[in-house]
Amino acid sequence: MTRSPHRPLGHRVATFALGVLALLIVTLPATRAVAVSSEAQRCIQCHSFISKGIIAQWEKSKHSQNDVDCYTCHQADPDDVDAWQHEGFTISVIVSPKDCSGCHDQEFNEQKGSHHAKAGQILGSLDNLLGEVVGGEAAVNASCRQCHGAQVKIDSRGRPTTDTWPNTGMGRMNPDGSWGACSACHARHEFSARQARQPEACGKCHLGPDHPQIEIWNESKHGILYHANREDLNLDASPWRAGQEYFTGPTCSSCHMSAAGNQPVTHDVGERISWTLRPPVSVKLNMVIYDDDTKDDINGDSPALPKVGEMAKTKKGEMKKVKAVLPWEERRARMQNVCDQCHAHSFVEGAYAQFDDVVYLYNEKFAEPAKAIMGELKQRGKITKADFDEPIEWTWWEIWHHEGRRARHGASMFGPDYVWWHGIYEVAKHFYMEFIPEVKEVAGDKLAKELLDKYVYSQPGHQWYRDGMSKDQLKKVQEFYQKRYQQ
Amino acid sequence: MTRSPHRPLGHRVATFALGVLALLIVTLPATRAVAVSSEAQRCIQCHSFISKGIIAQWEKSKHSQNDVDCYTCHQADPDDVDAWQHEGFTISVIVSPKDCSGCHDQEFNEQKGSHHAKAGQILGSLDNLLGEVVGGEAAVNASCRQCHGAQVKIDSRGRPTTDTWPNTGMGRMNPDGSWGACSACHARHEFSARQARQPEACGKCHLGPDHPQIEIWNESKHGILYHANREDLNLDASPWRAGQEYFTGPTCSSCHMSAAGNQPVTHDVGERISWTLRPPVSVKLNMVIYDDDTKDDINGDSPALPKVGEMAKTKKGEMKKVKAVLPWEERRARMQNVCDQCHAHSFVEGAYAQFDDVVYLYNEKFAEPAKAIMGELKQRGKITKADFDEPIEWTWWEIWHHEGRRARHGASMFGPDYVWWHGIYEVAKHFYMEFIPEVKEVAGDKLAKELLDKYVYSQPGHQWYRDGMSKDQLKKVQEFYQKRYQQ
Amino acid sequence: MTRSPHRPLGHRVATFALGVLALLIVTLPATRAVAVSSEAQRCIQCHSFISKGIIAQWEKSKHSQNDVDCYTCHQADPDDVDAWQHEGFTISVIVSPKDCSGCHDQEFNEQKGSHHAKAGQILGSLDNLLGEVVGGEAAVNASCRQCHGAQVKIDSRGRPTTDTWPNTGMGRMNPDGSWGACSACHARHEFSARQARQPEACGKCHLGPDHPQIEIWNESKHGILYHANREDLNLDASPWRAGQEYFTGPTCSSCHMSAAGNQPVTHDVGERISWTLRPPVSVKLNMVIYDDDTKDDINGDSPALPKVGEMAKTKKGEMKKVKAVLPWEERRARMQNVCDQCHAHSFVEGAYAQFDDVVYLYNEKFAEPAKAIMGELKQRGKITKADFDEPIEWTWWEIWHHEGRRARHGASMFGPDYVWWHGIYEVAKHFYMEFIPEVKEVAGDKLAKELLDKYVYSQPGHQWYRDGMSKDQLKKVQEFYQKRYQQ
Repeated sequence: MTRSPHRPLGHRVATFALGVLALLIVTLPATRAVAVSSEAQRCIQCHSFISKGIIAQWEKSKHSQNDVDCYTCHQADPDDVDAWQHEGFTISVIVSPKDCSGCHDQEFNEQKGSHHAKAGQILGSLDNLLGEVVGGEAAVNASCRQCHGAQVKIDSRGRPTTDTWPNTGMGRMNPDGSWGACSACHARHEFSARQARQPEACGKCHLGPDHPQIEIWNESKHGILYHANREDLNLDASPWRAGQEYFTGPTCSSCHMSAAGNQPVTHDVGERISWTLRPPVSVKLNMVIYDDDTKDDINGDSPALPKVGEMAKTKKGEMKKVKAVLPWEERRARMQNVCDQCHAHSFVEGAYAQFDDVVYLYNEKFAEPAKAIMGELKQRGKITKADFDEPIEWTWWEIWHHEGRRARHGASMFGPDYVWWHGIYEVAKHFYMEFIPEVKEVAGDKLAKELLDKYVYSQPGHQWYRDGMSKDQLKKVQEFYQKRYQQ
Repeated sequence: MTRSPHRPLGHRVATFALGVLALLIVTLPATRAVAVSSEAQRCIQCHSFISKGIIAQWEKSKHSQNDVDCYTCHQADPDDVDAWQHEGFTISVIVSPKDCSGCHDQEFNEQKGSHHAKAGQILGSLDNLLGEVVGGEAAVNASCRQCHGAQVKIDSRGRPTTDTWPNTGMGRMNPDGSWGACSACHARHEFSARQARQPEACGKCHLGPDHPQIEIWNESKHGILYHANREDLNLDASPWRAGQEYFTGPTCSSCHMSAAGNQPVTHDVGERISWTLRPPVSVKLNMVIYDDDTKDDINGDSPALPKVGEMAKTKKGEMKKVKAVLPWEERRARMQNVCDQCHAHSFVEGAYAQFDDVVYLYNEKFAEPAKAIMGELKQRGKITKADFDEPIEWTWWEIWHHEGRRARHGASMFGPDYVWWHGIYEVAKHFYMEFIPEVKEVAGDKLAKELLDKYVYSQPGHQWYRDGMSKDQLKKVQEFYQKRYQQ
Repeated sequence: MTRSPHRPLGHRVATFALGVLALLIVTLPATRAVAVSSEAQRCIQCHSFISKGIIAQWEKSKHSQNDVDCYTCHQADPDDVDAWQHEGFTISVIVSPKDCSGCHDQEFNEQKGSHHAKAGQILGSLDNLLGEVVGGEAAVNASCRQCHGAQVKIDSRGRPTTDTWPNTGMGRMNPDGSWGACSACHARHEFSARQARQPEACGKCHLGPDHPQIEIWNESKHGILYHANREDLNLDASPWRAGQEYFTGPTCSSCHMSAAGNQPVTHDVGERISWTLRPPVSVKLNMVIYDDDTKDDINGDSPALPKVGEMAKTKKGEMKKVKAVLPWEERRARMQNVCDQCHAHSFVEGAYAQFDDVVYLYNEKFAEPAKAIMGELKQRGKITKADFDEPIEWTWWEIWHHEGRRARHGASMFGPDYVWWHGIYEVAKHFYMEFIPEVKEVAGDKLAKELLDKYVYSQPGHQWYRDGMSKDQLKKVQEFYQKRYQQ
């Protein structure tokens, strides 16, 4: 993926190439001799004593073996908003994706239209309201923005402010206008593929009550086999293809990003995703890629999609030329192509059928009725327009944002405990034991009956709750307990 | 454990032995040359390109080194309900324990009477009611049945249906009538002992809010030492005995299944278990083994047990000859024999005393009173006969099925955080703050007082809640906080 | 750290040195020949057959390589309260820190004044009240005391009682009067530094709902890099310095205990800690070290501190000479000196600024108001003096003891999920949805209004809850959802 040096370079690297006349061989604290620029020698002179770990990390990196040193990445134009003078050099603290694109332009282009790059754009969301209003700015800086990315502010000295830095959020809004942080996954200062291919890299953000992907993967057969066979995973290989360079224990990267079969690696982690499992009600995702590598997701099973080559209006309202269109079926096919490397295709189809069925169950039995009722309650003034000031709002929020996502993510990655105990079990328990009683409380008996009859009891799957279980069902349960526990 | 080839083989393997005339040496995509049947050569011809990971996994396996190939396991009789024609061969997708028993009959016989094999028999249980009625069929397929095992259905083409396959549930009900899935632990297509000995293999199912064994083990000294010394665990050894082939960091398998001292490996994971920690109230377990290797658990500290050699009525009402009887003391002795490999026996006895005490505390202080009260409430018509339609039913369910199990499992494996914070703390908090108030609500003041006086306040350990704490207790708490936090 | 043999030894080791005339070379079950005393030969004769794992662990240890054998550590004076006769030898089961101090006196002295050593002193705390009264003694033995340490009781035969042993609690109160258990971290019978440096060692106790340090570290970049690079961590090195012997993935020990730069290792884990994050409201910690190596923590940003060399009154009221004083700034400087090994100092300062801000947010917005209100409610008789018999007491307890700690610990170690979802999110949700309604319930409308106006609504950060959100805020949320989810 690394570009060869004769291809055009980004501005910092270009400046560097012109400016540096001599690469000298220096002996670093460790044993290997590497070529570094005269500027970087100055960096190393001090930083081998202070923050010596940085030097050791870099020395182990592919960068050090390929003449990429401190100054290559940290040098700045004096006009850069985050440029400052340090020991006679004009540098900046933050190395942005745009800086990295000097050598890694393909990865940059793939990443820049991805959901990852946009992760900082959550201003105005309920998450953000919760964070800033219900919680507080300090919590947002140390939590939300550590994954989503901060808008990095620069102080009068050209340095990032302490509230916005350190920050390696995936959608960090950098001083140069680019979005993202390569070091979110490829940690400083080794920046290796090996490390980013390991599941923990993704687990920094994809975890917890609202999107526990790492926990689900860990309990899945994929995770089990990874932990059992990690030593054999050949994590340094290039390319690194499931079924070829390794053949067990796929990681997050294996399925969502890495090469497999004839499919190349991609730095758009959403490319192979056909459902969105984040919103209150899940929908299929179709991708439109414009000629500047920006992208839009179009929702739906078979929406109208623009054609390749034509001009189309983006979600932001601009007219752009369409470079590629990936309907959800194509995105799914790409994912399944990874699965196929180690599974019979009928197995893969079965797995997807079970996954789809859980999404439909969640959508139809719980999410759509609850969403409709919440809309009616708000519209009729039974709850305030503000979110989170009434218990039913927290209940519904956790049903879709936490529990319902856990069920859906659990099904997508084959973590049975998450599908059920952390997922549908919680959804159902809170739907019946909290949501419905709270509807009755805020709506009053008459309206509650009307809403529940319309949206809930119209489904056979909910009637047990209103009408009780059948005698047969009750008898079966009783007999089972007699037999199993003799109590 | 693998049978030598001259012993009688299961039907598929026998057929194979007659039918295959030539074993040819073929060169696989990787470097090692292995002997494969002519049929399997055809499999490999295609599957080295599609689903190539399977071939690589198998090539690494002991199977490939011992002339067991694709066709050995997947060939089928045309009469098999799940037989279908694939590229000129009669095969089946599912390889059942019965198929594996052709070579591994001892393991099959140990497994077939175990709780593992019966894990799919939960129809009629509250778990199942919850899953199917409160949740929904799709969730059951992707969760409960992924561990417990599905009743695999076969479509008109002889292939398993997508709702019941993929499935590697431990008690899977296979088309050939056998129960279980060897690949639940020995993952496809390497099927190694090494992998199944690692804790993650068990953790796929033994985790989560209702039986967090993997989490408990992870926090125990056993887990700590495993993670610290995994490289030295000699996981490929045969035999693999605690204190001999390895001497630190025992895994789930070490204690529940693997050889230790003069004790052989067993594939009945329940053999060394003397308490059942699953039901509302824990009881001791005594095992009766019949001459067809089926088993019954008889509850109690000293129940009447049949004698070896006599005919006895099984729980299902059949008459069978008794092959062996393991009273709970013998089951415990077998487990303690494992402990003894690395601990002084007095240490082991102390550990068991602490474990037993937690079970008795849970049983007597919380579970028996709550169970009795729930029984009375149902009998007197204060709650409906249906489960899960009233809050108190969820409260009691989570007290015994989730929190009380966590405490008991925590004590059994020395995970202090689970004994307390995820266990007795939750039990007590919900007993006092939810269960008792809910009893008052559904029973009314008069009956509630009667029930609580009879079952709860008759125990000194509950009186603080009704009568308040003593002045001495209050003073101690106050002084402590003054001193510790100066606030 | 190990003392050289010519320095004065503790009593057991001294006795041993005089009493043992011959060290013989014996061949152990494994291949390496080591020198053992004639007494230990007798131990090994039996224990190579029973509890053979112990012998193998010891044989792998540095102890076996340095003439420290079974008898060196387990021999006892006949007058010791826990001495008993075993096969002709006077031994004791428990090897206490005082015993270990015969060779490791520096470590012993560092440890003996630490919070670790005092971890058993929780009698009278709310934790203990909860454990013993609300839970039960059996649960306390198998949980609280397994981390905090039991008061080990000795039976009439000189053996520890089963309720107090096994126990490797960090603040175990040993029969010889010493506090602690070296084997809490350096597990029997290898007692290695390598194992204790790994994060799981600390995770046995520093986990769970009330202090999830291991979970936080695991999700932090530090944990991610540890798991990615564990093989390169050089865990056996001596010294073992961040940025030198290893340069990625620091463990708990790296930051809190191990050497770094010119800073030596310490066995007082609190030395580099500048905030206490445990109490309801966090405060800075200043350490006074007396000349007998006992220590006091003095709370506050700039409290009056004694001077080195002068006599000062300890918290217990004794007069002792002051050996050293570490104001919170010095403790923080020591921690930051570790950070500096791998980070630019401005990065470290930013990280601390973000951490501090979360602590202030928690303290000021939530903890101080709730604490003040709870004090008023108790003082005015609106709640009983007993804790835990009213819902609001559980609510407040979990806010500070569980959720508020999680937020603060999360911020201290850069685990964003813990800062927010397990931390401030839970704090805020329970503050608004449980605490405030419960205040209204127990105080009545009038007093509740008075208390809430005084302590809560006096802060702008809470006014959204009383007054609703602004139209602007509401509009932003609505627009976001339109755009993001098209629903």
